[in-house]
This record gives sequence, structure tokens and C-alpha cells, in this order.
Amino acid sequence: MTLTASFEDKLAKLASTPTGLHNKDFLLTWEHSDSEIAALLQVVDLLETMYAQGISTRVFDTGLAVSLFRDQSTRTRFSFASATNMLGLTVQDFDEKKSQIAHGETTRETANMISFMTETIGIRDDMFIHEGHKYMTEFASALEDGFRQGVLAQRPSVVNLQCDLDHPTQSLADLQHLIRTYGGVENLRGKRVAMTWAYSPSYGKPLSVPQGIITLMTRFGMDVVLAHPQGYDVIPETLEVAKRHANASGGRFTKVASMQEAFEGADIVYPKSWAPFHVMEQRTKLLRENRSGDLAALEKECLENNKKFMDWECTWDMMKRTRDGRALYMHCLPADITDVSCEHGEVSADVFDFYRIPTYREASHKPFVIAAMILLTRFADPARVLRNAIERGLPRRLG
Amino acid sequence: MTLTASFEDKLAKLASTPTGLHNKDFLLTWEHSDSEIAALLQVVDLLETMYAQGISTRVFDTGLAVSLFRDQSTRTRFSFASATNMLGLTVQDFDEKKSQIAHGETTRETANMISFMTETIGIRDDMFIHEGHKYMTEFASALEDGFRQGVLAQRPSVVNLQCDLDHPTQSLADLQHLIRTYGGVENLRGKRVAMTWAYSPSYGKPLSVPQGIITLMTRFGMDVVLAHPQGYDVIPETLEVAKRHANASGGRFTKVASMQEAFEGADIVYPKSWAPFHVMEQRTKLLRENRSGDLAALEKECLENNKKFMDWECTWDMMKRTRDGRALYMHCLPADITDVSCEHGEVSADVFDFYRIPTYREASHKPFVIAAMILLTRFADPARVLRNAIERGLPRRLG
Amino acid sequence: MTLTASFEDKLAKLASTPTGLHNKDFLLTWEHSDSEIAALLQVVDLLETMYAQGISTRVFDTGLAVSLFRDQSTRTRFSFASATNMLGLTVQDFDEKKSQIAHGETTRETANMISFMTETIGIRDDMFIHEGHKYMTEFASALEDGFRQGVLAQRPSVVNLQCDLDHPTQSLADLQHLIRTYGGVENLRGKRVAMTWAYSPSYGKPLSVPQGIITLMTRFGMDVVLAHPQGYDVIPETLEVAKRHANASGGRFTKVASMQEAFEGADIVYPKSWAPFHVMEQRTKLLRENRSGDLAALEKECLENNKKFMDWECTWDMMKRTRDGRALYMHCLPADITDVSCEHGEVSADVFDFYRIPTYREASHKPFVIAAMILLTRFADPARVLRNAIERGLPRRLG
Repeated sequence: MTLTASFEDKLAKLASTPTGLHNKDFLLTWEHSDSEIAALLQVVDLLETMYAQGISTRVFDTGLAVSLFRDQSTRTRFSFASATNMLGLTVQDFDEKKSQIAHGETTRETANMISFMTETIGIRDDMFIHEGHKYMTEFASALEDGFRQGVLAQRPSVVNLQCDLDHPTQSLADLQHLIRTYGGVENLRGKRVAMTWAYSPSYGKPLSVPQGIITLMTRFGMDVVLAHPQGYDVIPETLEVAKRHANASGGRFTKVASMQEAFEGADIVYPKSWAPFHVMEQRTKLLRENRSGDLAALEKECLENNKKFMDWECTWDMMKRTRDGRALYMHCLPADITDVSCEHGEVSADVFDFYRIPTYREASHKPFVIAAMILLTRFADPARVLRNAIERGLPRRLG
Repeated sequence: MTLTASFEDKLAKLASTPTGLHNKDFLLTWEHSDSEIAALLQVVDLLETMYAQGISTRVFDTGLAVSLFRDQSTRTRFSFASATNMLGLTVQDFDEKKSQIAHGETTRETANMISFMTETIGIRDDMFIHEGHKYMTEFASALEDGFRQGVLAQRPSVVNLQCDLDHPTQSLADLQHLIRTYGGVENLRGKRVAMTWAYSPSYGKPLSVPQGIITLMTRFGMDVVLAHPQGYDVIPETLEVAKRHANASGGRFTKVASMQEAFEGADIVYPKSWAPFHVMEQRTKLLRENRSGDLAALEKECLENNKKFMDWECTWDMMKRTRDGRALYMHCLPADITDVSCEHGEVSADVFDFYRIPTYREASHKPFVIAAMILLTRFADPARVLRNAIERGLPRRLG
Repeated sequence: MTLTASFEDKLAKLASTPTGLHNKDFLLTWEHSDSEIAALLQVVDLLETMYAQGISTRVFDTGLAVSLFRDQSTRTRFSFASATNMLGLTVQDFDEKKSQIAHGETTRETANMISFMTETIGIRDDMFIHEGHKYMTEFASALEDGFRQGVLAQRPSVVNLQCDLDHPTQSLADLQHLIRTYGGVENLRGKRVAMTWAYSPSYGKPLSVPQGIITLMTRFGMDVVLAHPQGYDVIPETLEVAKRHANASGGRFTKVASMQEAFEGADIVYPKSWAPFHVMEQRTKLLRENRSGDLAALEKECLENNKKFMDWECTWDMMKRTRDGRALYMHCLPADITDVSCEHGEVSADVFDFYRIPTYREASHKPFVIAAMILLTRFADPARVLRNAIERGLPRRLG
């Protein structure tokens, strides 16, 4: 198949975007250079274009992709299944309940035992503060060790499907949604994003989404504002990263104390509930010590406290403050929708319904983001691999 | 590979059999035209022939097939896995327990979230009367909406793997079994099929099999007789469909009050237990209201009532009434076999054992029926796709 | 792709090694001839070489591989997933809890129902003495029957992933580890292997590993010594097999009463806990009769008895007795490591850590062993199939 000029341009650009991702992992966006983030977005775009044109994106003939979910999930599970299937890998769930973890296996051993023919391992571990990212790095270091010692024929990459610190597949899918919405990453400069806490009648929601958003969007010259009630702090480290990125990119990162202020003149709003950092710390401690009575008390206390902030809801009244009253509403889904999924939630039913289809589109990029992470971590020359796949011109389905 | 004359004939016939199935679903056989049912049988035959000759039937290079089982299953699960594998799709189970359904997801959202790279969704939802089919149509309409709005790059089909109304993969596999047994669909005309209730020491068995059989077999000029004890009615709507089909095809549909009458002169017998329609309605209501005490009382009452009809058993004595005493015995399996799986059941051990292998063959068509449903709903020109697959001549396994 | 001389030699050798494995099962190594074991090792070597060179080993275009685990597992589950993926098959778990086994299905029926498009069925059933192997043979005979009767288009092989008698995928992976370590099967002659019981604070561990080792290693002229405390006998039948094999191969099989004696001058040590044969028999009986009180009493009694033998631990002090104090330590993993996974275990932390990487390499052969079993049982001419795969020269991943 002869390449179109558009493909030639994209492949040439990718070829000239250096990354050090080969044989590495994708855990936290802020560990990766601007060039690496750029390369990832380019691969996402190439894969989406190939998919839309019905060109097979299969680059592996055989190989496993392991999924390890320590929290329930629909979207991420299907996104990982889609991403790996698109590349030719087969998912094997690592179900800790079915495994011999109970028999005292160490992470080091397990990591090697499940990886003899594995290309990538997607891990979701977001329930325990200070634990998720740590577990992933331990896992990755065991794989690195096994590869260097000749135990593993290849070095599988670990892909973070959500940890206590970051949710890179979500934030990068969100970024791709913004790029598609505004017609290019260069058009994001100066746009105001309100990442704000919102009320939900539940507790214990991870912090990784707000942390992922403030650390990533500040890299592109955006005006990122974070808002939450007193006490609902995110992990301090991520605030530092957001400030650093805003300074480097010529963007802005500010904190305000109300949803109203955050929405003022916003181009994009992302109202979403999360649990206070210190509560998640306390909860992790109690869970580890198996103190169910204290856990119940903590939950009750938190839900009571949440109720003080029931006016943190994204309504049309609130939306009026945004640019032209029609900021782009974003959410990682599922949202807590007032009168739909609960009595009082993060967003009113009429606002959500107005933006429902755009939030679905937002979600649709995630499989491609995950596939791009795998491609970049598993191939030394991703531009060449994609060129070969396009030139091969294999249709995704028989005509 | 040069096509044999036999393949040429079959492909030409398929090409001239119009269907409106592309980008639609397969939920109830009676929603589909005679031409569509004919096309489905032709695709089943083509796929079975290709499989027998070791020709790869893979038409997708990548893509997901989602399975959503709301009731336990061995056969149907493996049939769906076999059918999708044969076409090149990878099954991803949608496990409602592992998902965020518990978090208040709506069907509309879920349907889109699991479908970004999905070609087909097989659903089994047969436990709740008035619910299964409704759920499938809601699911399908959400997919239709997502596709039209540009959220989904393709419009996955919903395939009914058993609902409260119909069990099309079973009834069509049964039909294919009859076609193979009698050497052609034209030879079914005038054959008498006794679809009859049989005793089982269990309760709550779905109605979809008898309903599927009486509505489908009446389309081919067969003499279909339905028998059950008083009170064990099927859903009235399906009786109307059966009558209409019998009238249109020149067949017959009658109801009788005993297994004896039904078996009289029958060419084919299908003795199988099911729960009365009104009991299933009551049960659905109690389940929804979580009234476990009343459910236990209902179960007890039903089992007691069942016991009045323990003589509804397919024995050799009963079989003597059928044509030459050797009607073809059919069952969707597993059967409740007297002295094998229970003390008193639907069929005596000696009758079942005599027909055991034919019932296995009956079941063997199901993967091909499901594959045909997928092929017809996912491709605009199935004859061309199959022609390409045959001409490609890829062996299913290396020689 | 032109074959290298090395591949030519290996393929020629395989072609001239007769086996009767086609359309059969792989259940117990001692049921297979020396020639069949030799062919299996040759296929393992060929597959490992192809994999290392990045040549696709995919020989099936489509097809299912069923996994049926009656005991939890990490390694074996992933090994089976890797092996089948490498050959192009898709795993479908047969989950007895999700299936209609509860509805009274017989093995005979189930075996056929899950096999319409199945090439191989991997079964792990090691918890019940006198049951596991029996179940596998029943399953295999049902498949044989279904194939002969024309129900199944192909005759799936049953692969023993661990039963009460043998653990062939483990013992053959162990053998391959020895062959790689010593540079050839011919170099194993005369090597002393100490297969010895070791203390563990758990009970009910299967006997299949020691039984698999003593029956297999005696075939290659090795000096196999079995050691265990009084009462911790293995199944007598396997002792007879080991003796017969030692006689035939010019090797030796002896029993001694202490780990010390067994380690004396050993080249290889395999210290591993297992439950006494008679305890497993008793346990099987109590489990079947659902006598939980008696089961708890049995467990307590056994754990107490185990404690008498806490000095059966593989320490450096113990290792000093072996050849040059540096025998090759083997384990099927996970090991019970003193001060790591338990207070007192099978092996001291320093010994285990010294041999950790070699035990990982030992495990790495298992996927290839399983793949070789499938290849040999599913193809009449495995040498031709592998020749075709090598000549095809398809890369495992795009370059």
C-alpha cells in the first residue's frame, strides 16, 4: 500500500521525536519528557487514523498482555482489552484470588513467573495511598532484573492503569479529547481548565484523576485552576509538579476555594469528587490493620463532612460563569448525576445530558492511549513499525 | 484456491438471498424475514463446510466480542467463544460483578464504554420474565445511538444468547440438526414435532426453548404440536406467532393436553421442563423485591405442583406412540435423566442413552449458528466475504 | 526463509523419532516410550530456539484451548496461557462454578459440549488422591468417543497440568533445565539427584512433584535418591516405576531415611514438602463426606507431626554435604523460605537467594513443554509442521 502524504508527514515527525521509552514503563506522566509525551500523542493519532481507515494495527503475531486489577473497573478493563487486541496481544488476567499469592509469593517471583511470554502488564492499584505506585515500581524492577538475568526473553513494560498518584491513561485520553476538540495541541495554550472537587454521596474515591489533570494540562500553557473544599487536599507532590510545569510552559496553575471561582471564565470544567488525601491515608492504615469498626466510623464521618459541600455541584447556574456559559464539561465517568444515579451528585441531569456524547468521545481515546504506551515501550523504532504496518495494508476485516 | 462447483453454487445462492441484517441485531427469530432465516441457514452450511475442510473462517484480523451472561452457562459460553474465535474475534467477558455497574452506571453508558472496538455483544438474560428481551433492545438502541453520534467507529450487533422470549441460537441449531437429519429444509414439510413439557424436580427453568421451537418450526410447513399440563402456559404472544407462521407456511400448530397425545405419530419429540409463565412473573416480582421468604414458599409450592405431573416422562412406552416408535428425540441439554441426574426426570435413562449422540450433534451446530449471526449482522455482503475467505484458502492449521 | 544447518539437523532428528502421540493425550510420563519423551524434548528445544530468534511459532489460525483448574495456580495458568498463545490457540476457562455442572452434567457430556472447536484441554486436578488421573482418563475417553461418533471434528488432547500421580509439565521442565545446565541429556548419566521431603508449616501439598521426578529422572541413567521421614510415603506404584526405569537405563533408584544421607555427594537437590500418601487418602475421604470437624482435626494432627521434622531444611550446612558443597538446587516454586514466607520452611533464605535465578530459569521451560505436548498430540507430522513454520519465517513481532 502506498502511503498517503498525510501518513508520510506523521511518520516522519514521529521518527524525529526522540524518546527513551523502549524497554521502560509508563507510570507517571511527569516522569516523561515533553518529547516523550509528544511522541505518545503522535502514536495515538496514527493509530486512530489507521483504525478509522480499517487498516490493521496488529504488530504482534503472538504474545501475552497481563492485566492486574486491584480495584473493580469496566472502562479500563475494556480499554486494556481493546488496546492489546488491536496490537495482537492476548489478555491474561492475573487474578490474585485464584493465584498462589496467598501461599506467600513475593512480587519479585510473581512478576517473573507471569512474564515468560508477556509483552506488557497493565496494573490498576489505586485504593491504597502510598502503595499503588510503589507496587508498580517494585513490579517493574523485578521485570528489569529478570530480563537482565536472562530469565525473560523480553522485558515487559508496566503500564499504569491508575495508581494513587496518577491516572495517565485517563489524563492523556482527556488531553487527546481536548486536542481533537480544539483542533491541535497548540490551541490549548491559554485555555482555562477548572479541575474542581464536586459533591458525591460516596467516599474513598481516588485522587489520581485531579492529580493527573493538574500535572499534565499545565505542560501545554494552559491556565489550570484547582478548587476543593478545605481539607480535600490532593497529594502535595503533585501540586509542586503542576507549578513547575506551568512555569516551564508559560501556563498558570492556581488554587481557589470554591467551584464558583474556578468556573469563572473557564473554557473547560472537570467537576469530580475525590476523598481527602489525609482520609485516604487513614483509610489505608485501617484497612491494613483490618479495623472494620474504625473503618465504618471513618466512612460515616467522611460522608457527614461531604454533606457540608453539597452545593459543589455542576449545574447550569454554575456553568453560566464559564466562557459564554458553555465551557466544555469533562468527566472520567461514571459521573454521580443528581436525580439519576443519586439524590445529589457531582452534576445536574440537564448539564450531564447536554455533554453526554462528548464525554463518551473523551473516553473513546483511552484504548489508543494504552496501545500507544505499549508500542512506545516495546519497540525501539515505533515509526518504522507503524510504517511497516501501514505499508502492509492488511484490512482489519475481510472486504 | 479455485472454488469447487459446490462452493460456487452456495455462494451464488447466498448472494441472491436478500437480508436487512447488516448493522442490526439478532434477537427474536420472528422479527426476521424468511429470506433472512434462509440466508442464516446458508451461512451456517457454508461455515460448517469450510470448517470440515480445514479452511480458515477468520474474517476479522482484530476486534472484540463481548459476552454478558446473567445466568450460568456451559454450552452457550463455549459456543460463543467458539463462534467468535472462528471469525477472529477475542471474547471479553463483561462481568457485572467486577464492573462499576454497582456505581450506578446506566445501560446506555455501559453499552458504549465496552464497545469502542467491539463487533458483537452476546447477551444471555433469561431469568426475569419481561426483562431479558427488554434489556437487549435497550442495549442495542444505546449502541445505535453511539454509532450515529460518532462515538463508536462501528455498530456492534447484539446477539441473543437466550432471553425470556426466545432462544434463537438453540432453535436454529435445532433446525440445522433437523435439516442435516432429513437431508434438506424442504423435507421438513409435514413432519410432526411434539414440543412437550416434561417433569423435572426443579423449578424456574426458562420458557425460551419451547417458545423458540414453536415459533420457528412452524415456518417450514411442519406440524407442530405443543403439550403441557394445565397452568404451564408459555407467553401468549408466542402462540400467536406460531399460529401465524403455520398459516403462512401451510403447516399446522395445535395444542394438546398430554404428552401421550402430542407423541401420537410424531416424527420428532422435544420433551423438556419449563416453569409456568405466571410463576415466572411472580418469581421475577419477588426477586426484584428481594422477598426471600415468599420466594422459598413459591419454590415449594411449584415443586409440589410439578409432582402431580411426574408421568410426563419420555420413556420407551411413551416413544411407542411415535412414528415407528422411533421419533427423533431432541433436547437442548442438559436433560434431567431419571436415575442418572435425578430420581424422576424428563426422560428415562434408556431412551436418553439411545439418542445421546444425536443430541450432541444437535448441540454441535450452535457455534456455527452464532458465527452466522455475527457474519450477517457485521458485513454488508456476506457472500463476498466468504468467497474471499475461501479463495484465500488459508488452512486452519499448518499442514 | 532458508533453514540454518542447525534447524535442518534438529528437524531431521525429530522426523526420525517415532511417536504414537498423535490424537492421544499426555497424562503420565511413564505411559510414554523413551522415543516419545525424546521427541518431546526435541520439540521443546526447537520451540525455544524459534522463540529466541523471534520466529513465530503459530501453527493454528484459530481454535480453542480449554483450561480446567480444580486447584488454584499462577504458574501453571500462565504457562498454559503462554503455550497455547504461542501456537495460536485461545484459552477458554472452564469454570465449574459458572457452568451447569451443578445441574448434574456428566463428564461425558461436558467433555463433548466444550470441545466442538477445541484442540486441547489442560486439566489440573491434584487435590484428591485416586481422583485426578481418573478424572482425566474419563475426560479423554469421552473425547475419544465423541470423535469416533462424529460429534467432534477433531479429537482434542488432554494435557495433565498436575494430577494426584504425576506433574509431567513440571518434571519435563525440570529435565529441560538439567539438560540446559549440563549441556545435553547424555551428560545426566550418573548424576545424583536428591529428591527429598522438606519441612513446611502447611499440610496437604500434592505428591505429584516427587513422584514425577523419581519416575522421570531414572530414565536417563541418573542416580536418583528419595528421602522422607517415616510415614511420608509416596504412592507405591511410582516407586515401582522408578525402579523399573533405573534398571532399564542403567541408573539407580534408592530410598534413604534422612535429608543428610540424600544430600551426600548429590549433584542436584530438590527439597520439597509433601503430605503423606495415607493422609491424602484420609483427607480425600473426609472432604468427600464433608466432615469439616474431622478435617480440622486431621490438619492439626498433621501439622503437629510435621513439626517433628523441622530439621529437614535445606541450609548451607546441609548443602555442604553435596558435591563441592554447591549442588544445583531445584524447586517447582513457590518455596517455603525460612524467615521470608514462614518462620521455618523448606529452605533457608540464603540458600534460596543464591539459587533464585536458576529456579526462575527452571520454571521458564514450562510453557514450551506444554506447547510441545500440544504439538505432538495434535499433529501427525510435527517435524513437517515446524519446518513449515520456520520456512514461513513470520516474525513474532513487526520489525
